[in-house]
Amino acid sequence: MPVNYRTPAAAELLPVAGVRLGVAAAGIRKPDRRDLAVLAFDSGTRVAGVFTANRFCAAPVQVCRRHLELGCDIRALVINTGVANAGTGEAGWQVATATCAALGNLLAIADRQVLPFSTGVILEPLPLDRLLAGLPACIADLRADNWHAAAHAIMTTDTVAKAASRRVEVAGRAVTVTGISKGAGMIRPNMATMLAFVATDAGIASPLLRELLREAADESFNGITVDGDTSTNDSFILAATGQAGVDVSAPTDPGYQVLRQAVIAVASELAQAIVRDGEGASKFIRITVEGGRDRAECRSVGYAIGHSPLVKTAFFAADPNLGRILAAIGYAALDELDVGRVRVWLGSAGREILVAENGGRADCYREEDGAGIMQEAEITVRVALGRGDARTTVYTCDLSYEYVRINADYRS
Amino acid sequence: MPVNYRTPAAAELLPVAGVRLGVAAAGIRKPDRRDLAVLAFDSGTRVAGVFTANRFCAAPVQVCRRHLELGCDIRALVINTGVANAGTGEAGWQVATATCAALGNLLAIADRQVLPFSTGVILEPLPLDRLLAGLPACIADLRADNWHAAAHAIMTTDTVAKAASRRVEVAGRAVTVTGISKGAGMIRPNMATMLAFVATDAGIASPLLRELLREAADESFNGITVDGDTSTNDSFILAATGQAGVDVSAPTDPGYQVLRQAVIAVASELAQAIVRDGEGASKFIRITVEGGRDRAECRSVGYAIGHSPLVKTAFFAADPNLGRILAAIGYAALDELDVGRVRVWLGSAGREILVAENGGRADCYREEDGAGIMQEAEITVRVALGRGDARTTVYTCDLSYEYVRINADYRS
Repeated sequence: MPVNYRTPAAAELLPVAGVRLGVAAAGIRKPDRRDLAVLAFDSGTRVAGVFTANRFCAAPVQVCRRHLELGCDIRALVINTGVANAGTGEAGWQVATATCAALGNLLAIADRQVLPFSTGVILEPLPLDRLLAGLPACIADLRADNWHAAAHAIMTTDTVAKAASRRVEVAGRAVTVTGISKGAGMIRPNMATMLAFVATDAGIASPLLRELLREAADESFNGITVDGDTSTNDSFILAATGQAGVDVSAPTDPGYQVLRQAVIAVASELAQAIVRDGEGASKFIRITVEGGRDRAECRSVGYAIGHSPLVKTAFFAADPNLGRILAAIGYAALDELDVGRVRVWLGSAGREILVAENGGRADCYREEDGAGIMQEAEITVRVALGRGDARTTVYTCDLSYEYVRINADYRS
Repeated sequence: MPVNYRTPAAAELLPVAGVRLGVAAAGIRKPDRRDLAVLAFDSGTRVAGVFTANRFCAAPVQVCRRHLELGCDIRALVINTGVANAGTGEAGWQVATATCAALGNLLAIADRQVLPFSTGVILEPLPLDRLLAGLPACIADLRADNWHAAAHAIMTTDTVAKAASRRVEVAGRAVTVTGISKGAGMIRPNMATMLAFVATDAGIASPLLRELLREAADESFNGITVDGDTSTNDSFILAATGQAGVDVSAPTDPGYQVLRQAVIAVASELAQAIVRDGEGASKFIRITVEGGRDRAECRSVGYAIGHSPLVKTAFFAADPNLGRILAAIGYAALDELDVGRVRVWLGSAGREILVAENGGRADCYREEDGAGIMQEAEITVRVALGRGDARTTVYTCDLSYEYVRINADYRS
């Protein structure tokens, strides 16, 4: 069960003019589940993507990068779950390109106008025949109000589908931003995320679209971790169809900041939903690190805490064994860190207590206060490094028996 | 239960001339368990130490560094378990120095000739009164044949005591090397280890002793990980009493290589014992990375694999979900890594199978072969990076339900 998250109802996910979605049960790895989705974009849509920094990136990621480089308008995305098509060498590339060719043929567009995505088990071949056999059903299913079904069709170990929607007024026009994501394990996105697809009917010129994509990734997916494992398949796509009658091309254009905030809000909601549904998660932890020299060092402290199995099991146990947080800050290996200036607070539901200062436990700290906060499902750790003005937030979950069960069972 | 490890019997731990050990049950955190140890060195012993790189290093680590810098002969070590005296600020420093003063007084040596060590819960005050009250019993217990008891007195979540002994002939004389260690969680030593104390009756000049210490740490404790958490208290001490009638001061001295190998063998056995007894461990995993440009990059690949919760749960489940290993290699972030040249083998008990090559699953790989090896208690992962001559080995264990239980329960 995810921590304080429910999938929006189908009716809550606002259609984006110019985007249609279709799903099918292609039996790629398991029978009788929706495991294939197609997103079709009307002509004129601009698309940008960021992808995993993993050196063993999957074949579909390689094909995506290639097709985006070629510069033709992207008109369709095809996403399968069950098999990641990663660690599949030359054969994997052939499967990914054959998928694009088949879908292009069915939609009467060029191969290079299709981006392929896969998620699931690594090192196993993706059954091309089943995937191709499922495509006509996806196309027959294409509808603008089908985001909910698509969110379900891309799940792996997710226990709930993840989707988010916003409607904002930009330059006097109603603009919609809707997106879906998936992911619960192998989550430590680096430059991108597991899989996330966000679309808006605003028109956004390509350079600005890429800037917005990077900014939204940085504010959302690049700040989450479940297990510290950066996936081979992380992809985050932002599409702008331009059908709302609003076009922006510079950050100073009227209404751009409102649109920007809406895109970041959707991306953040999707990213945090992944953590709330993190494998075995029973707690949602926000780690805010402030007072750093730059954002990178704040992030490295946040990730040191967020990746520590000892910190994560303490949260699972609701045990305020907070020395484990100090140890993690200490091994984040910041140059010349003066531990005497570091302060740590623990908080929940608007309440916050000082835990550590002057290199040790705060005089005012009472164990029963810490124990009370550790019982909550949503907990904030705030760390002040006391050496600068930079700050960032990392989102993570606890480490439970259920995490081990899921990952010991998955695939077998 | 540790993986293929048993504590040597008391009689198997050879006394080192010039070293006496005593233990006591001081009730520091729990009643009726041995939790305090003193090691006393005869005059003329040379001592070197390496310590944690954690910025939140414990008060006793700070005092050790200070006392070693002051340059007086070190004549005694005092080690308590239960409370780490880390994250304890100025008060922690006072407790550590008062401990040295009290022991110095009892042994008629200077404060600065004592090194203090603590292990246990972080961020809690170390009860100085109980520690001091236990010291006379330790001193009354001082004996040369007491290594076995000392190994027990320094345990925390360890399920077994860890000790190792070697006798070698150096320049025609019998030389003994005996050591003890502790640690099961918060294990990812960086420059040192949890706690390890090794002594020899060879005489080793100080510069060579420090070189040997660093080399032995690098070959043993700096290559192990249980959970990726670098402790605040890691310390590795090497003492040379000189009472065997053998003195060395240069690597070219007769017999030095034999002595060097014996020290490294004892350190390696102690380090591997920590992994075999890693919290919740049911498997012992050797990860050898070869063909790297330098040792650092081999180690970063080894640790990426060894820290991955997904890899570790797959080992626990005996599931050959080996794509997780490729993903970990990929996110170790080696510059310009050509994944097409990477090869991965899985092995056990003298048998080894090629799993991955050319960026994907090896043609000859059969799932049932992988599944067979994954059933074994000791497993080797060998990774060839195909871009140089460097190599290293990282030792780790699996991630089990028991790991979560131990760390959710510990302290509470």
